[in-house]
Amino acid sequence: MKEIIVPNLPPPNGHYSHAVISGEHLYMSGILPNLVKTSASLNEQFSAVFEVIQKILNFSGCNLQDVVNCRLYVADIQDWPRINELYAGVFGSHRPARVVVPVKELHFGYKLEVELMAEISK
Amino acid sequence: MKEIIVPNLPPPNGHYSHAVISGEHLYMSGILPNLVKTSASLNEQFSAVFEVIQKILNFSGCNLQDVVNCRLYVADIQDWPRINELYAGVFGSHRPARVVVPVKELHFGYKLEVELMAEISK
Amino acid sequence: MKEIIVPNLPPPNGHYSHAVISGEHLYMSGILPNLVKTSASLNEQFSAVFEVIQKILNFSGCNLQDVVNCRLYVADIQDWPRINELYAGVFGSHRPARVVVPVKELHFGYKLEVELMAEISK
Repeated sequence: MKEIIVPNLPPPNGHYSHAVISGEHLYMSGILPNLVKTSASLNEQFSAVFEVIQKILNFSGCNLQDVVNCRLYVADIQDWPRINELYAGVFGSHRPARVVVPVKELHFGYKLEVELMAEISK
Repeated sequence: MKEIIVPNLPPPNGHYSHAVISGEHLYMSGILPNLVKTSASLNEQFSAVFEVIQKILNFSGCNLQDVVNCRLYVADIQDWPRINELYAGVFGSHRPARVVVPVKELHFGYKLEVELMAEISK
Repeated sequence: MKEIIVPNLPPPNGHYSHAVISGEHLYMSGILPNLVKTSASLNEQFSAVFEVIQKILNFSGCNLQDVVNCRLYVADIQDWPRINELYAGVFGSHRPARVVVPVKELHFGYKLEVELMAEISK
């Protein structure tokens, strides 16, 4: 098992690693859009989440094409059609398994949190 | 990694596959009861979810006995005792690990969504 | 696949195993603080959850240092800072990947439920 903490990202805001590698998979912590303010638009929050995700994946030797499944926690299900469009834009032809979880609220009032699992190339 | 899209099911209603196989496991997307209307009874919604799940598992060469764990997202925790009965009925003597997640609401107003992971036979 | 039901714990309150081992990993069911009453304090509920988790891990031949990732379902996000402190206390220098999921409510009115995945030593 290997704990991943990416140097050029804000350190984890609590007792966790950005991700952990176990066997041939990487398990990422839930990623909030904390590179931007909670007042940022949905587009900006989505971009902030995927900027962090890509940095963690790249630091670990993989990328979005290696993602196996994603859980998207959303504070307002009305945001879903736009999130799906943005999501299709970052993944292109690759379609991981996916779960959308409508939650009561998210930490600090953000609109979106994303958790994922990816294959680690040997 | 292999993306699974089952031909004799409604196509995914967004940017995802029905399931993805990675290594020796299948990771299924969250399955809603979208073979029936949102006005369908809890029993009908439950049956609709497990009809889709079984088709995805069978298409991938496995079945309910291969399920390792399940997450059940429920819109009304009062439905839980009945869901547990129906769930015991489909799994029989097999008891996967399980998490019940009470959510604020589900897509389109459905009562139940199920996500799971299963072993793929070699 | 091996279903784990730990003899010296309350039996599962529904159709599930305490955990399931598949390949080199253990997948635990969502653990509620059901060793204590719902009126117990947050500290007591947290301790009750981790007492059960440690018994399941130990029975399966592993311990908290083998945990890869955790999902913490919390009924009141205001509890989060204290939960993070308690969590850091039980894990020490080990930092699994983590997701915090604010839910509408939890079974029976509990404050916290924890789900995790761990490596099984050979």
